[in-house]
Amino acid sequence: MLFCNIRYVDEDFVLRENGFLGIEEDKVEYIGAVPPEKDYGRQIDGRDLLALPGLVNAHCHVPMVLMRGYGEGLPLHRWLRERIFPFEAKMEESHFYYGALLGIGEMLSHGITSFSDMYLHVPAVARAAWESGIRANIGFGVAGEDVKGQCRLAAEGARRIRELGSDRLRADYCLHAEYTSSPALVEALLDAAQETPEAVFQVHLSETEQEHREGIGRRGMTPAAYLDSLGFFGHKTVAAHCVWLEEGDMELLRDRGVSVAHCPKSNLKLGSGVAPVKKLLEKGVNVCVATDGAASNNTLDMLDEGKVAALLLKGANLDPTLGTPGEMLRMMTRNGALAQGRGNTGLIKVGYQADLAVFSMERAHWHPLGDPLAALLFAANSGDVAMTVVGGKVLYENGTFPTLDMERVKFEAKRARDQVLAALAL
Amino acid sequence: MLFCNIRYVDEDFVLRENGFLGIEEDKVEYIGAVPPEKDYGRQIDGRDLLALPGLVNAHCHVPMVLMRGYGEGLPLHRWLRERIFPFEAKMEESHFYYGALLGIGEMLSHGITSFSDMYLHVPAVARAAWESGIRANIGFGVAGEDVKGQCRLAAEGARRIRELGSDRLRADYCLHAEYTSSPALVEALLDAAQETPEAVFQVHLSETEQEHREGIGRRGMTPAAYLDSLGFFGHKTVAAHCVWLEEGDMELLRDRGVSVAHCPKSNLKLGSGVAPVKKLLEKGVNVCVATDGAASNNTLDMLDEGKVAALLLKGANLDPTLGTPGEMLRMMTRNGALAQGRGNTGLIKVGYQADLAVFSMERAHWHPLGDPLAALLFAANSGDVAMTVVGGKVLYENGTFPTLDMERVKFEAKRARDQVLAALAL
Repeated sequence: MLFCNIRYVDEDFVLRENGFLGIEEDKVEYIGAVPPEKDYGRQIDGRDLLALPGLVNAHCHVPMVLMRGYGEGLPLHRWLRERIFPFEAKMEESHFYYGALLGIGEMLSHGITSFSDMYLHVPAVARAAWESGIRANIGFGVAGEDVKGQCRLAAEGARRIRELGSDRLRADYCLHAEYTSSPALVEALLDAAQETPEAVFQVHLSETEQEHREGIGRRGMTPAAYLDSLGFFGHKTVAAHCVWLEEGDMELLRDRGVSVAHCPKSNLKLGSGVAPVKKLLEKGVNVCVATDGAASNNTLDMLDEGKVAALLLKGANLDPTLGTPGEMLRMMTRNGALAQGRGNTGLIKVGYQADLAVFSMERAHWHPLGDPLAALLFAANSGDVAMTVVGGKVLYENGTFPTLDMERVKFEAKRARDQVLAALAL
Repeated sequence: MLFCNIRYVDEDFVLRENGFLGIEEDKVEYIGAVPPEKDYGRQIDGRDLLALPGLVNAHCHVPMVLMRGYGEGLPLHRWLRERIFPFEAKMEESHFYYGALLGIGEMLSHGITSFSDMYLHVPAVARAAWESGIRANIGFGVAGEDVKGQCRLAAEGARRIRELGSDRLRADYCLHAEYTSSPALVEALLDAAQETPEAVFQVHLSETEQEHREGIGRRGMTPAAYLDSLGFFGHKTVAAHCVWLEEGDMELLRDRGVSVAHCPKSNLKLGSGVAPVKKLLEKGVNVCVATDGAASNNTLDMLDEGKVAALLLKGANLDPTLGTPGEMLRMMTRNGALAQGRGNTGLIKVGYQADLAVFSMERAHWHPLGDPLAALLFAANSGDVAMTVVGGKVLYENGTFPTLDMERVKFEAKRARDQVLAALAL
């Protein structure tokens, strides 16, 4: 596949024009200002297109698309107790699978090429990701009782993913949060991960003020300091939300190399607050962007998420110089890739994985085309995604999904939701 | 035209399903749960569609699309002095016209059926609005020197719009802001409007903290109190931004029946802050939503604006119960129509103008379809707009514009921008 005369962002997130991008198998093989000599097969006229590294959704719960719009208007902890937990308790294996397929289809239609997931019935999510062709860090979680049994299941699931023999799917380990865990559980999880020291850990951290304050009351230290005291950050870690971090927490995360998955829309929508992104960036923390689950968003749209993140960075700090398009696009792609431990993704660069989000610049809101990256971040929407490519394979193109039967997926997702709601009504 | 089996919001902003909407000439003539007996001509299968009253953009500067992405990252007053004012000084009549056409095309593609505009070279904007078929309150402004000459021009322009003999275009009067005006200018404007006491006034109010504080220093009272002391609010008024209003200002606006045009994205992007919408609503002010100009947004996308408004209302107040979809959709439609003085628009109601924004619910992010209004506000994007209808006429449908040659408009808008930039470089 060869993109001709295309605009793209280079590895420094600077816009380049009239470029040629040649893709061979799963990698970018050629980048240049002149056509390559080699025949790359399909040629794509890129004159009205803009190519980004594929968007990386650094924190989500993909089957929660089934709960889209369920429990609107509730604060986080009531929303969890009164709506989400009861719904989840009635979900069956097939529901997780079809929910995951629907969410993955949505992400592909939004230019997302890789995601990190934390949820239940993880093998169903892994199966959906595997079949769809998307890249994913599938998190195996441990929470609640029967710690040993769950740890065994997590290690077993992680082993099966490694046995697929593809780097496209990776097994992460998840701890739901400080407030749903005990030191024994954390230690058991660390034990389970002992044979894979390279595995990434995912955790929710200081999402609401209440949870942060109660954590301090419970542990005598902040949730971040508590996890650190148990050695949790010895693994590469992605901490989601981080709305209520204190200064010392931020320095701790930086020192331990922990990435922060910033979920601005979910944090606003649940009334949790606005994460201190300006300070996190100043301290040198790797900040990436994520959608959280669709139950609290209500979409898995990374372009929209990045736009809201940029607007908040400017608006909450009364400083319009913050959140430049290049900086935001890096947070939405490369920083997420690094958080996933996937150093060979997140950049358009020779030798890197060919993960691309390609936008059509045809619609009126791009014109006149003065600053394409500002137009992408602040004027475009996910209706402009023309093509999504993962490892050199086209997984979305102008409304079509080569690997997914989306009409079937939408039908099954509706049936799943209806079945759960019927079970809840009994 | 008859929409069959369609979802729509009724006059109380409650979702209705499987409805039939019959449109005769410029009005909604039939709304019912069963098909009408009358033949309405074209029948549209509404099973995957959602109809809203057309979105109303209560404050913009439509030709500023030419400056989209020009001057990124600057605070408001530097952005105005260093970029916007010099650019505007080089703009010619045709540039305003093609800029207006491009912005109107963009708005139609985003489901906007009516807008209130405040800008320069107003007859060119009026001509573009007239030709496109959109509904508009065209603001004739007075600022700077030669007050009498400008007031004469404004009154003359307003008279010409009235002579068109259509209610689709209306002439408003505009005062740029307290900080660019004098009492003499305000009085001259009030004089010019004397023969049309029903005309709506538009003004920028307390957009930045600096401007608000300096206004108090200059006048010995807040900008709102100053305008009131001159009798400005004797006319029906739309005050844009209102980020830094004080409690007394809010009560004053309520008592005078002044509408607030809330522009959350522009206010965030320029680092101006977040308007006190919760308090304004509590006090009973008519709050509507607006995009401001595309130079500071960078789009004219009312669905996106309403979503950001809702997220901020929840997030800035740490209260997820605020900003329900029904309430936000009312702010984005009916409240804007009332601010424009157009009581017969902004609702889907028999006898009202047939102004509709029709969304396709086909794409993955709507599914499973549990709460269509929450999906519209929080998950959809303007790529989902299927049709925009103004006064019974289809002005946008699936990428096509029956009244506009958009390829020509994009070409001319690019040429206009290039010409201005070339003139600036001399």
